Order: sequence, then C-alpha cells, then structure tokens
Amino acid sequence: MGQMEDSVATIEDANAEALRRLLAAEPVLAGARPAGEVIPGLEDHVMLHAGPPIGWERMCGPMKSAVMGAAVFEGWAAGPEEAEDMAAAGTIAFHPNHHFGAVGPMTGITTRSMAVLVVENRAFSNRAFCTLNEGMGNVMRFGGGDAEVRDRLAWMAATLAPALAAALADMGGLALKGVVARALTMGDEMHMRNVAGTSLFLREMLPALARTSDDPETLATLLEFIGANDQFFLNIVMAMAKAITDPAHGIEGSSVVTAMCRNGTDFGVRVSGTGDEWFTAPAAMVDGLFFPGFTMSDANPDIGDSCIVECVGLGGFAMAAAPAVAGFVGAGSAADAAAYTRDMGAITVGSSADWTLPALDFAGVPTGIDARQVLEAGVAPAINTAIVHQAPGKGMIGAGVSRAPLGCFEDAATALGIA
Amino acid sequence: MGQMEDSVATIEDANAEALRRLLAAEPVLAGARPAGEVIPGLEDHVMLHAGPPIGWERMCGPMKSAVMGAAVFEGWAAGPEEAEDMAAAGTIAFHPNHHFGAVGPMTGITTRSMAVLVVENRAFSNRAFCTLNEGMGNVMRFGGGDAEVRDRLAWMAATLAPALAAALADMGGLALKGVVARALTMGDEMHMRNVAGTSLFLREMLPALARTSDDPETLATLLEFIGANDQFFLNIVMAMAKAITDPAHGIEGSSVVTAMCRNGTDFGVRVSGTGDEWFTAPAAMVDGLFFPGFTMSDANPDIGDSCIVECVGLGGFAMAAAPAVAGFVGAGSAADAAAYTRDMGAITVGSSADWTLPALDFAGVPTGIDARQVLEAGVAPAINTAIVHQAPGKGMIGAGVSRAPLGCFEDAATALGIA
Repeated sequence: MGQMEDSVATIEDANAEALRRLLAAEPVLAGARPAGEVIPGLEDHVMLHAGPPIGWERMCGPMKSAVMGAAVFEGWAAGPEEAEDMAAAGTIAFHPNHHFGAVGPMTGITTRSMAVLVVENRAFSNRAFCTLNEGMGNVMRFGGGDAEVRDRLAWMAATLAPALAAALADMGGLALKGVVARALTMGDEMHMRNVAGTSLFLREMLPALARTSDDPETLATLLEFIGANDQFFLNIVMAMAKAITDPAHGIEGSSVVTAMCRNGTDFGVRVSGTGDEWFTAPAAMVDGLFFPGFTMSDANPDIGDSCIVECVGLGGFAMAAAPAVAGFVGAGSAADAAAYTRDMGAITVGSSADWTLPALDFAGVPTGIDARQVLEAGVAPAINTAIVHQAPGKGMIGAGVSRAPLGCFEDAATALGIA
Repeated sequence: MGQMEDSVATIEDANAEALRRLLAAEPVLAGARPAGEVIPGLEDHVMLHAGPPIGWERMCGPMKSAVMGAAVFEGWAAGPEEAEDMAAAGTIAFHPNHHFGAVGPMTGITTRSMAVLVVENRAFSNRAFCTLNEGMGNVMRFGGGDAEVRDRLAWMAATLAPALAAALADMGGLALKGVVARALTMGDEMHMRNVAGTSLFLREMLPALARTSDDPETLATLLEFIGANDQFFLNIVMAMAKAITDPAHGIEGSSVVTAMCRNGTDFGVRVSGTGDEWFTAPAAMVDGLFFPGFTMSDANPDIGDSCIVECVGLGGFAMAAAPAVAGFVGAGSAADAAAYTRDMGAITVGSSADWTLPALDFAGVPTGIDARQVLEAGVAPAINTAIVHQAPGKGMIGAGVSRAPLGCFEDAATALGIA
C-alpha cells in the first residue's frame, strides 16, 4: 500500500514534469533546408518513413510506391522497378522519422535531397524536422512518385525552401506558439484544418519574403503554391509538435505519451518513461466520410506521423475549435466537436494556458496524454486524419477520426510496471 | 381589416424583395482610387462625413478636428486654425458619405485626394466606396489630423492604393462573398474582428501583388502596413455592405433598413420604402469595456458609418461567429455571443445561405433588419463598435455594443404608415 502510494506519487510527479516541459516549449520555425544537410545521419541510401519501424515486406501499398518514387528522385534507381528490387534486396536502409528527430505526413518518406522545415524549441535547444506540404492530388505522401511528383519535390527543394529560409533568416525565425494560439480562435484544430494557420503564416512571412526576393515571378509562383494549399501549415505544426514532445521524453516513471504514429501497417506509441521502446498494435481502419465514389473497402489503414499534433493537444483534442472539421470528418455538429475535446480532457495530465478554445469559453486544449488515464477511462486518443487509398498513387479518398489502439497503452503500462 | 391585411401583404412582399436583393448581391473589390476620380460630385471644397447630415456647429470634437486635418491635407488651409475658420464660414460643403454612395469609419471624413476602395455589386451594376483603413493610433478616423496622419494618407493614396489597384486589375477583381463566408468560420464577425478576413484578403492578393510590383522594398512596406493591421479588411467589408444595401433601397412599402449610421451627434436610419429621408435620434453612449485609464466620461457618443455591416447580417448580428469579440466588447461568453445572433433573428426578414455560423451548426446570419419587427419585438439592432475619446486626436479608448435608438424606427414606421 505504501509502495503503491509512492509509485503513484512518483508517476504523478513525473507526469507533472512532462507536462511542464510540454507547456514550457518555445518553438520557432527557423529554416527550410535539404534534409541531408540538417538531419544527422541521413546518409545516402537511407530512407525515413512514417510510423514505428517496419521492413519493406510489411509496408502497405502507398508506402512502397512512395519508397520507389523517392529512390528514383534521389537517383538511386533509374525507375520504379529497379527501386523495388533495391528495396527488396536490402540496399535501402529504412528507419522511422522519429529515430532522426523528424516526422512526416502519411507515408512520411524523407530522403536527403528533399527539403525539410526546421523547428527549434528554444526553451530546450532541440530541433525537429518535417518535409514541406506538397499540396493535394498526386503527391508522394499519398504514395505518388511519378515525374510530376518528383519535379514538384525538386522545385520545393530548389526554390520554395530557399525562399522561405531567406525570409526566416531575415526575420530571425517565426515564433509558432502565438500563431497557433490565434489560429485556434479562427476555426483551425491544426490537423485537418489549417486555413487560418496557413493564412497567418503567410501574413507573417510576407514582408520578409518580398524583401528577400530577387524575382517577382518566382515570388508570385511560390505565394500561389502556398496560398492554394490550406494545409501548408500542417507540416509546420507537425515539426513544431515533434520539437515540443522530444524534451518531455525520457522522464523516469512518466506515463505521458511522447509520440503516436502509424506506418499504414502498425500503430506505434512511445511513452516518456519507457525509453526508445515502441508499443505497437495493428493500424486500424478509419471511421469517417469518404469522397464520392469511394468506400472503406478502398481505404488503407491509418497512416502517418501527423498524430504527433494530438500529443500536444491539437487535432482531435482541439476539435471544439473547429466545428467545420467535425462535419468534414463525420464527427457531427458543433456540440459533438466540443464533446471530443471534453472527452480528451479525461485522458490528459493538464491543459494549455496559451492555446485556448473560444467555444469552450477559452478553456485550454487538453495536453499531455497519460497512458494510465487512457486505460482507466477506457478512452482512446482521438486523431483527426486523412484517409488514403490502399492502391498506390490514388491519393486521399476521405477524412475521419481514428482511435489509437488501446493495446499500445496496455503494453506501455506493463513496461512501466503500473498495469 | 381587409385594408390592413392588404397592407401587411404588401409590406411582406416588399420586404421579401428587399431580402432577395440583399442576398443576390455579388460584391467584388474592383480597385482603389483617389476619391475625386471615382466618386461623382466629390469636388474641391466638398467634404463627406459619417452619419446623417450635420453642420459644422453641431459636429462632435473628433469630427471637427478630422475636418480641420482634412482641409490641411487637401491644401485648402495652411493650418488647423485657418481650416476651422473656413468650416465655420461655410467655405467647406459638408455632406454625408451615404449621399455619395460611400461610407467611412468613425469620423468618416472623405475628400477628393484620399484613396477609396471601390466595390462593385456585379448583380446590380452599382458601386460603393470607402476610405482605406489607416491602422491604429493617431489616425484621421479618430479625429487625428497632424503631419503624421496627413503623411500616412498621402502615402496610402500615392503608394498603397495604386499597388492594390494594379493587383486587382491583374486579378479581374476580388470576389468578396466567399472571403467573408470563410472568415465567419474563422472567428471574425467582420466589424470588430477582421483577423481572418485581413489574412485571407492578403493571401488572395499576394500573387498578383508580387507579380505587379516593381520594387521589393515597396512591396514589403505595404505588406507590413496591411499585415500589422487586423482591421484592414473592415473598410472593404463596409464598402461591400454599402454596395449590397443600395440596390435594396427604394422598394415601395418595404420596412427593411438600408442604412444605419452615426455622426457622433445623431444616429440616422434609412428604410427602403421611405426614400431619401433620414430618421434620426441622439447618438447614444456605448456600453462596453474601456482601455486602462479611460471611462465612459471620456467617451464620445456613437460614431461612424461602419454599422452598415450590421445591415447585411455582420457585426453584432454575427456575434456567434466571434466569442473572442464578445469578450472584447464586454458582451460576455461564447453562449452570450450566440444569444446576440439569435436575438437579431427576431428583427430580420431572413437569413443568408452563404454566410453561416459554425457555432450555431451553420445557421445563416440574420439578414434584412425590419423596422416593423424591431418595434414589435422591442429589440434594437446590436452594433459592435469602437469607442472614441471625445477630445480630438486621443483615439480609441474602448469597444462595446451600441444599440440603434428605437425612436428612429418609430419615425420610420410613421412615415411608412404602419405605426
């Protein structure tokens, strides 16, 4: 009894420290650079992917085809067939983005020549990375890899990222906490809706983008590219969330979740007090709404690193901010949206004083998912997500709310000795 | 009895037609030009002001000092004393903005060398005008008129407006209905909060602004000017609302309000079926929250043409969109914000299918204020507004909700023969 109370006290202290670190973060968008120049260890023939570790054989269709496209993009293979042979032969080393301080949307493929966003957490001096958003349609994150996709990635690395980097250097970086705070009061939950975030981001960047540009046509083209993509800001939020969660990892005894991610085959969870171990379960099918002509039988299981944003109180946890998203993902009305956020309050250690929700009279977003509370309440974290077609290159076919598998949290609790 | 029923049927038909015209509008921001070039009849020594007609003697302090500043800006007077003498001697002809198809914020002073926004209502081929937003602090709309204020107005006419006009010409104009629809889902009510509208406006304008710019430093400066001003979009919304309401004016028998405005001394109302007549009552003090150091004893009575936006279902009528504004203007919580919008539903003819409110599960904004319903319900239109200091040049000291005086609607009902 005494020991159990000690144990509880320890967990609570440890979780309070994890929450303190999550809330003390000072994330700043610092730059955009080729991944190989900024991600330590991202060598030739190394490929990062979304989710927990997985080998070529178990990868889902969209991830395999993104791998092939990326190998051609890097010049490692002349075409997709050669790339497939290389992957099967073990010539390409696969690792999770999370093992390299990075995250990636959907398939999440990251290689050295792709541009990545760099977010610095200036309260803890750590950095995190995420590729830039490619827009909708035929894109690598949904498994695309043809010439159109590769040309866009090349343009993003050669033109878009340097322009953003020059502006960010001119500005001394862009502090993200305030932009997210404001976007939450403007209908974004920062996962499936980033209309406000993208608009505010552009507005903050514009003077420096104009000042550091040497060609109006190039400037106009990149403003069109970003302006046409309501989700451009999502990838910035993802890198931000990774930069926020990393310092909360590695606190002895803490049951706070520091990462959730999916590779399209497995769902993976990491907890602060259990080191580098991934607790995995099969990735679930996503309950949601499908675009006309598609059904759940077309869908790939849950995929992507994007649910790192739920680990910092955004996405499904901030659904009350975004009644429009509730409709889009099939989660109902404004009242239902508020209920999601209230439910997530039952499985989190605390809430944010900086990120607040007007519809809940400015209550803070629930922050710090506690694996122990998840099990006690029997409430799985809610994740707002896109749904991708299981066939390579067919892209997004719907959107919905996925639930993190409870099995991951049960295994984490066992590893922590609190099961 | 039979006659009364006929009369009611006629009013209802007339009001239905007014609503149809309000909702059928297709407002497009078409340009930005010197007022003297686009507003017919805006000659030398003519000065337009906010609110219903008023002479120099009865003008409030901020309006008088804005008049003096504008006369110096135009070169009619060497200094404010000479300008004051001219105004008192009748050398300056004063007219309401509304008599010239225009609206203006707060003091609303408009003269020929100032730049105005041009909004075309393409469904009815009419145009409306409003000066551009000057930002916060020492500005003419709050009664400022010194060199800083005049230099800014000159820069806006010489640099800002031509750049906007070039971009708008390149784009073929900017359709406003969709921008407002989106901003309403992003926490703006379009009167006291235009954060989303300003951001979305910039995002739409950017590629063309970049493409038509010949100088990066000028582009950066004007992007900073707009980007630093969350209310930049308000003046566009005002010109839009004037362009929407004008075609609904002049319908025989209609009791729909086509203009509400205040000059800081009088509140004025125009109704569709009563021609050019203004129904006036003393402008009220505004109930709201004051910035630190100020109280209601410092405040000027209600002032400005901006409440034209309430006539199209925005501002106080769309308060449910903006819980953050409810707090800022002292109107309470998110639930209170929703209640304002519901109350306005009792005094309007219908609602918009295009402009909807997520927090009310996408109900449309209440549209078409009906003077008859105002009297029957005893509910005065709610107007979100800034509060200006009564002393010239001291600027904004708070924000609140003002109520249109019921006396204006009683007089309108009498004139319509329905009292």
